[in-house]
Amino acid sequence: MDLLLQFLFSISILLTLAYISSNIACMFGLPGLVGEIIVGIAIANFVIGDWSPMSMLNIIMPTEDSIGNTLYSTIHLTAELGVIFLLFTVGLDTNVMDLIKSGKTAFTTAVLGVIFPFIVGFILMVACDGSINHALFLAAAMVSTSVGITAHTIKNMGLIDTYEARIIISAAVIDDILGMIVLAIVKGMTQTSISIQNIIFITIQASVFVLIIVAICKYAIPKLNSTKFEFIKLFSSKLTFISTNKLIFAIMICLIMSAFAEYIGLAAIIGSFFAGMLFSDCASRWNLKQEVEPITTLFISFFFVDVGLQVDASSLMDIHILALSAAVIALALATKFIGCGIGAKIGDKYIKKSSMEIIGVGMMPRGEVGIIIASIGLVSGVMSVDLYSVVVIMSVATTII
Amino acid sequence: MDLLLQFLFSISILLTLAYISSNIACMFGLPGLVGEIIVGIAIANFVIGDWSPMSMLNIIMPTEDSIGNTLYSTIHLTAELGVIFLLFTVGLDTNVMDLIKSGKTAFTTAVLGVIFPFIVGFILMVACDGSINHALFLAAAMVSTSVGITAHTIKNMGLIDTYEARIIISAAVIDDILGMIVLAIVKGMTQTSISIQNIIFITIQASVFVLIIVAICKYAIPKLNSTKFEFIKLFSSKLTFISTNKLIFAIMICLIMSAFAEYIGLAAIIGSFFAGMLFSDCASRWNLKQEVEPITTLFISFFFVDVGLQVDASSLMDIHILALSAAVIALALATKFIGCGIGAKIGDKYIKKSSMEIIGVGMMPRGEVGIIIASIGLVSGVMSVDLYSVVVIMSVATTII
Repeated sequence: MDLLLQFLFSISILLTLAYISSNIACMFGLPGLVGEIIVGIAIANFVIGDWSPMSMLNIIMPTEDSIGNTLYSTIHLTAELGVIFLLFTVGLDTNVMDLIKSGKTAFTTAVLGVIFPFIVGFILMVACDGSINHALFLAAAMVSTSVGITAHTIKNMGLIDTYEARIIISAAVIDDILGMIVLAIVKGMTQTSISIQNIIFITIQASVFVLIIVAICKYAIPKLNSTKFEFIKLFSSKLTFISTNKLIFAIMICLIMSAFAEYIGLAAIIGSFFAGMLFSDCASRWNLKQEVEPITTLFISFFFVDVGLQVDASSLMDIHILALSAAVIALALATKFIGCGIGAKIGDKYIKKSSMEIIGVGMMPRGEVGIIIASIGLVSGVMSVDLYSVVVIMSVATTII
Repeated sequence: MDLLLQFLFSISILLTLAYISSNIACMFGLPGLVGEIIVGIAIANFVIGDWSPMSMLNIIMPTEDSIGNTLYSTIHLTAELGVIFLLFTVGLDTNVMDLIKSGKTAFTTAVLGVIFPFIVGFILMVACDGSINHALFLAAAMVSTSVGITAHTIKNMGLIDTYEARIIISAAVIDDILGMIVLAIVKGMTQTSISIQNIIFITIQASVFVLIIVAICKYAIPKLNSTKFEFIKLFSSKLTFISTNKLIFAIMICLIMSAFAEYIGLAAIIGSFFAGMLFSDCASRWNLKQEVEPITTLFISFFFVDVGLQVDASSLMDIHILALSAAVIALALATKFIGCGIGAKIGDKYIKKSSMEIIGVGMMPRGEVGIIIASIGLVSGVMSVDLYSVVVIMSVATTII
């Protein structure tokens, strides 16, 4: 059988399973990604009793190893593209000017909400297992707040127009930016030997990258916008055939920046996140969000199944790992709650105690970004499979709670 | 360097080149696909002077063969997905009920517009080169009319509300269906030995497949529609997280039908085309076209570059091939003109001579479907590279004219 046929079979089976399971998860009020991850775990562990992704494809359709490898690589790369587009969409929602306006309460909330979980996660892992690399990645995965799930919860609770809601959403967005910086630093540190010079160098490199992007967003884009738009109009006046031309332009920039970020040793998603920020001004005018979303939706299903495929179910039965997961979950929730609460207090001295609690709770969900960071750790060989399972459990659990 | 980085580099370079070239083509008033094909040819032939797709990737980034192979397979499969989604979109525009209403003039126009080019193309190739397989594929590639380009041209000429325009568009759509049947038969015939029994068997198989789908569209869907919709609503009432859920459902059906069509020996695009027809009733209600389009736009750029990559530029210099191309172009235009004109006359005895001419000219552009059929022939090893170049030249030329 030819490659195309096997490819079509694999992706239609995976997509069908992902569709059904995410709908079932949604019926129980859980986010769809929980269902998709469980399907991945089920395929990898129970259907075949062996958790390599290769053997999963073999059960669907016995193939030669070389074709199976190509197929799995294709699905894996598709999943990676999904993550890149997801972070691009998150970036599209992140308007630098709005953030700068949103004031210091959101900023202190976000900063302490990052520092607290990172330090506690780092200490916990160093105490448990002694490996600094493991500790760095686990701590980084504990840092980020899921903007999407947070915003959704706030909307469901009817709190969207309150003071707390505005701080939570702004802080969650700043959290994402800080999370990207932390990821950049952590990824850089695990690639070289750990020394004070290296840490300083990587921190500077990551900060310069971020600052340049933020500066472009703040100063260059507003000025260039009219010029750039003229330039594109020059092209697009003739583009009667291609209606979604601007979409391709945006995706092109997104892919180039992802490739560049990956090339200089940052993660690809950092590039796509900041590419999204670059386009956040024209997002609504160009209808970008609506057009990128179908692509993201299609690809991201593969990512969560892929995440599940890499979890070893036997580690879910291991009492040691379960205990570690429970500790990480409790600490992730507690540190975020305390960090954000104190941060909000520092930013706004007259804030009520109830507001601090709402903000602390609102910043709890971790969602997909923690999982993405963990899978980067797994792929680069820094994280063990057991630890990866811990992070997936932590992200799923904090999201459900 | 890791796989993800190389993948990101390759696709961002390809997408950038495709974007620039298709914009340049549009500036000259040509369809973007012409620019993309030329970029593919240029990369494969002039940049490296060697036209294997592998060496193209090598020039971008020297890699080991195994990684390069995986990369090229991924890009190739992405391109194939683009074609599958493109035909799905065409199917979404094809409403069976409207076609049945559109009457016999459109039908006779389409049928004779298919039979004429097919027979003449077949005879030409048998005379030139003696291979029945070559002849079958070339003839099939000469058959289809590009609905998209045709509709666009009619709109530009301000003829959209005329009698001729309605016949042309309906006939072009019927043409596509007939083209799919022809492709199914041709593909089946080249896979087995040619005998009367086989031809009859394959024709019956393809017709039954098409008739079942058409019957489902006509009878089952209108009745089931309310029930099915209830069923989906049952799910989607809880699906607050997933807004583009219906899109995934449609894509899932599209992929399953493509895989099934490919599996039983038809082409994958036949499955996706008829999947599109299944959804044509709910397309506007579900907002399907707008949501599939970004995915198609992104993937299809890779397809046309891929098409160009497989054209051997030296064959463009070969006087024999150029002569054959010229003959094929002339015959493709002439047979379509005569066939459609006579077809229109048979369908409507009182039609004016000027209308016959307008309809004949309107049905001329071939566009992407001919290229897609040729590339199926090339991949399945039935067509030679030279003949493939001829079809690409023919499609590009008839489109430009």
